[in-house]
Amino acid sequence: MVAGVHHPGPEEIGMESHALHVIAYPEGEVGAEHFAVVPVELPDPDRLADGEVLVRNTWTSVDPGMRLRLRAAAPEGYFTSFPLHQPLDGVLSVGEVLASRAPGFAPGDTVWHSLGWREHAVVRAEDVAMNGVGTLRRLDVRDREPQWFLGALGPMGLTAYSGLAVVDGLDGGGVVWVSAGAGAVGSLAAQIARNVGHRVIATAGSPAKVDWLRDEAGVDAFSYRHESLRDGLRRLAPDGIDIYFDNVGGDHLEAALEALRMHGRIALCGTVSDYESEPRGPRNIFLTTAKHLTLAGFRGSLHLDLLDEMQQRVGAWLRDGALVYRETVYDGLASAPRAMADMLAGRTTGKTLVRLA
Amino acid sequence: MVAGVHHPGPEEIGMESHALHVIAYPEGEVGAEHFAVVPVELPDPDRLADGEVLVRNTWTSVDPGMRLRLRAAAPEGYFTSFPLHQPLDGVLSVGEVLASRAPGFAPGDTVWHSLGWREHAVVRAEDVAMNGVGTLRRLDVRDREPQWFLGALGPMGLTAYSGLAVVDGLDGGGVVWVSAGAGAVGSLAAQIARNVGHRVIATAGSPAKVDWLRDEAGVDAFSYRHESLRDGLRRLAPDGIDIYFDNVGGDHLEAALEALRMHGRIALCGTVSDYESEPRGPRNIFLTTAKHLTLAGFRGSLHLDLLDEMQQRVGAWLRDGALVYRETVYDGLASAPRAMADMLAGRTTGKTLVRLA
Repeated sequence: MVAGVHHPGPEEIGMESHALHVIAYPEGEVGAEHFAVVPVELPDPDRLADGEVLVRNTWTSVDPGMRLRLRAAAPEGYFTSFPLHQPLDGVLSVGEVLASRAPGFAPGDTVWHSLGWREHAVVRAEDVAMNGVGTLRRLDVRDREPQWFLGALGPMGLTAYSGLAVVDGLDGGGVVWVSAGAGAVGSLAAQIARNVGHRVIATAGSPAKVDWLRDEAGVDAFSYRHESLRDGLRRLAPDGIDIYFDNVGGDHLEAALEALRMHGRIALCGTVSDYESEPRGPRNIFLTTAKHLTLAGFRGSLHLDLLDEMQQRVGAWLRDGALVYRETVYDGLASAPRAMADMLAGRTTGKTLVRLA
Repeated sequence: MVAGVHHPGPEEIGMESHALHVIAYPEGEVGAEHFAVVPVELPDPDRLADGEVLVRNTWTSVDPGMRLRLRAAAPEGYFTSFPLHQPLDGVLSVGEVLASRAPGFAPGDTVWHSLGWREHAVVRAEDVAMNGVGTLRRLDVRDREPQWFLGALGPMGLTAYSGLAVVDGLDGGGVVWVSAGAGAVGSLAAQIARNVGHRVIATAGSPAKVDWLRDEAGVDAFSYRHESLRDGLRRLAPDGIDIYFDNVGGDHLEAALEALRMHGRIALCGTVSDYESEPRGPRNIFLTTAKHLTLAGFRGSLHLDLLDEMQQRVGAWLRDGALVYRETVYDGLASAPRAMADMLAGRTTGKTLVRLA
């Protein structure tokens, strides 16, 4: 499918707009009660300052990492907290330029930027995004869905690709386990690993996700709800694994430390399992010494040098069908809190998105 | 000091010998009650088989890793358990050759091998030691204490040196924290790190160890019993650390994950803190992802390629005083259980040794 380019008519200018605010930090599970959709004035395009661009957002991204920012005190070294009663910042979005006073951007352009979770945004072209990826940028959507740039061709793709890169996993030839394998990053990591020549085992919770991994993504898969991680890994990789791409942490990380062969490597992408509860470290971490393992934490945003290479390779796989890609789409800003709660509870598949247009 | 070479007289041949047996696996702390010194017949030198060497052991090594083998079921991927009611195997020792039917070995030679914790051993020259280091080997003790080869010039030195190597820590220029800095490996890692050009912070429990680290080893140091790890690290490294050499695990590893700067590295040498109690993983392991950290488990025995390089560099530092080296020596085989208990309880300093001659 090719996304149609929407040219805003004059009737949209001056209309009311909306933004999502955090009104309370969740103690446990994220719910609609922690957010409010607030009416805001649509910025006047005639009052843009030099270097500013008015964007009508069409897609905004729902990322697991956002859960870390829904706290009064965000973990040190990571992002800052989302402030209460203000629009959420630092969330990648795709939109269309309505008006521009920045060179290189014109009405009708499709762009990405970091001011998501609101229907309209005024973006300064020169502001460098906190996470590196979301600096205002024109997107070539001629043969690509615009929302792909929030997923397979954007931060998620860069995370999957660079995670394999940091553990020397782009040359193939090994056995790779990807946890949360049907998730936004996991589904990409599993298929990239398969496409570069690894044997891939992916795990997920639900049978539907496992079926998708086997039938659509084309990798070995099992559900940790129906078979213990230890048993499933022994069944599918009796001689052990070489690389573990960790999207979960907790018991998954412990199972990987057990299953890895000598000199195995772990790409630590994030620990969703810890976001909702008291974190717990891997009790068998001594196996890193025993088996000469390497654990490499990474963030895709620190591998912008790989962005072009990733977009070329993953873009080609997407076009020729060697990499399939699923989205769970929620419509309208008001559905955003439910989108996040569903994603953190494992009720979404693939990239979770909110469509605003 | 130069060790005198002891030539055994005929009165020693045919005497009774002794070996240490494990008679019960400790549930908690290691104590004398878990061992027995058993009289054994001294092997007849006239009955050696081809390729065998009779060695009178003079020094045997007490290593933290031995605690892992004092279990009915040793952790998978590491060593095997010490069997009950048999001499302990796989423990590096230095001794003198009494008789030899192996080419390259003659009475009076000083050697190392893996059959320690007994007064006499019959060693097959061709047996490759399980841990790689302890295959029978002649030692050049002309300007070196023979017991140095059990420590600074042996496995401990190789562990310290290769641990810094695996985290690219041999080029200097950073801030390095070494835990258990007065221990057998830690004291070497701290001084090697300092000698290659790092700023080094070492931690220890007792004030005496801290004094030794400051006054003798010449590195910054503090006691985690008198100042929290967090406070001490902030005081001595307000801008954070680049490398953590982990000999402790547990709360030390958590403090390191907090103190490390972006792109920091951890060399995971072993987790003594876990040997005596239920292991616990680092609860803030998510910081690995947040700060792009690398944790590299390693064993010196897997870096035999670095042995010559290490012995040359560390040997030179030892001779010119740029590296100081302490030993805690227990006399006689009967003192071996106490030596291990004292070492695991933190009551020893530097390399722990049992002198048998």
